[in-house]
Amino acid sequence: MQKRSEEATSNRPGFLFDLDGTLVDSNYQHALAWKEALESIGFDIPTWKIHRRIGLSGSMLANELSRQTGITLTKDQSRAASEMHAASFNRRRDEVRVLPGAVVLLQQLTQLSVPWAIATSGTPEDARPSLQLLDIPDNSTVITAQDVTAAKPDPGIFLVAARRLGMSPQDCFVVGDAIWDILAARRAGALAVGLLTGGYSAAELTDAGAYRVLEDAEELRRSLDLTGVHSGIAAPGSHVADASVDNAP
Amino acid sequence: MQKRSEEATSNRPGFLFDLDGTLVDSNYQHALAWKEALESIGFDIPTWKIHRRIGLSGSMLANELSRQTGITLTKDQSRAASEMHAASFNRRRDEVRVLPGAVVLLQQLTQLSVPWAIATSGTPEDARPSLQLLDIPDNSTVITAQDVTAAKPDPGIFLVAARRLGMSPQDCFVVGDAIWDILAARRAGALAVGLLTGGYSAAELTDAGAYRVLEDAEELRRSLDLTGVHSGIAAPGSHVADASVDNAP
Repeated sequence: MQKRSEEATSNRPGFLFDLDGTLVDSNYQHALAWKEALESIGFDIPTWKIHRRIGLSGSMLANELSRQTGITLTKDQSRAASEMHAASFNRRRDEVRVLPGAVVLLQQLTQLSVPWAIATSGTPEDARPSLQLLDIPDNSTVITAQDVTAAKPDPGIFLVAARRLGMSPQDCFVVGDAIWDILAARRAGALAVGLLTGGYSAAELTDAGAYRVLEDAEELRRSLDLTGVHSGIAAPGSHVADASVDNAP
Repeated sequence: MQKRSEEATSNRPGFLFDLDGTLVDSNYQHALAWKEALESIGFDIPTWKIHRRIGLSGSMLANELSRQTGITLTKDQSRAASEMHAASFNRRRDEVRVLPGAVVLLQQLTQLSVPWAIATSGTPEDARPSLQLLDIPDNSTVITAQDVTAAKPDPGIFLVAARRLGMSPQDCFVVGDAIWDILAARRAGALAVGLLTGGYSAAELTDAGAYRVLEDAEELRRSLDLTGVHSGIAAPGSHVADASVDNAP
């Protein structure tokens, strides 16, 4: 009977989603908000370098960028930059939209009884407006910076997320847009699906160790079967697709 | 003597620079301005897809994105989006900075009597404030959308730029951040140097056919010798570097 029980645990994966750049289209606003924040404390860092570091925690991002410039940020400077970033991002927040497929994918996973969580490097305050855009139930599992001591690429945030779902990380897919998600996923022992929605290229995500790279949550939704979730979702344009949610177990 | 004259023409290359994302750090503002513009005419396009199409002309960008969505833009919609983009970008212009090494590279090429031009898909009005940031002489060779009938990836803009310099495109390096620059360069018969400053990955630029991929104008400046420009520029940190300009022929 061992074979059957081994099969059972590998049958229904859980999903651990990154938030910014993965479910909501906020990376470009975050990059420019960090650019403004770092400039305010005297650092002139080109936007593309900041863009590639979105998804790290604020303090890690500041440290990473200060290594680039050879200048060490004091704790006060790092805190000032984080506060300035939060203020600058808030001014840009009205421009943030959900990404294609994100809302429907989460709804569909819920209806299919597939466990899922959101695991973000941001604070609860950072995350709240983005979570509102996603229109998810109040009892959704959301892990933020305050639940862990170290941010991505430390695996802690995904380990905590899997535990809250009552699952082993090995039975979970991490879905993220940044190499930090992919690196953290691998250290957690989870397979990582990279999405292009954050502005990284497919090659960067593959090089970091992504199991698969898809365009966006919509493409993941249409290919759920390939992750072991038997959704009954047909190809886009098919009439079956619209009915699939009703057919869910 | 033919050999010597062949060598002479291949000895001193010219440089044809893209502007946005290559010399000035404006791609992220352009991407968000296009996002706002397209939304205003009813298109919800994720920012990363727009980002990857910066460097096309406004109308080509609109057409490319409408192909993505399957909806055809009318000429009026396309014009409205272009106007809205220009207005939205103007509101963001205060955030635009020059990229590392850009100003000094152009100065150094001038002092070394190396021909260079700027070739941008933008209009003269788009380009003017960015050119001001670069602090270049009034008589610099600048080719804009009004000088050609088709924008990149059509090779026309680089062909015109090379002709204005009195050079064959085969003797020029195109320096750009977007695959559209690289594709246009190859069609023009020029070697393309890709810079990471626009937010594309090295793999995307290499796949498009870049001869080399460098981080930014500063890295190009430090490796001018590798392009056949004998600048006498030493490695960064060396005292010789500061004196190299004075040693220029």
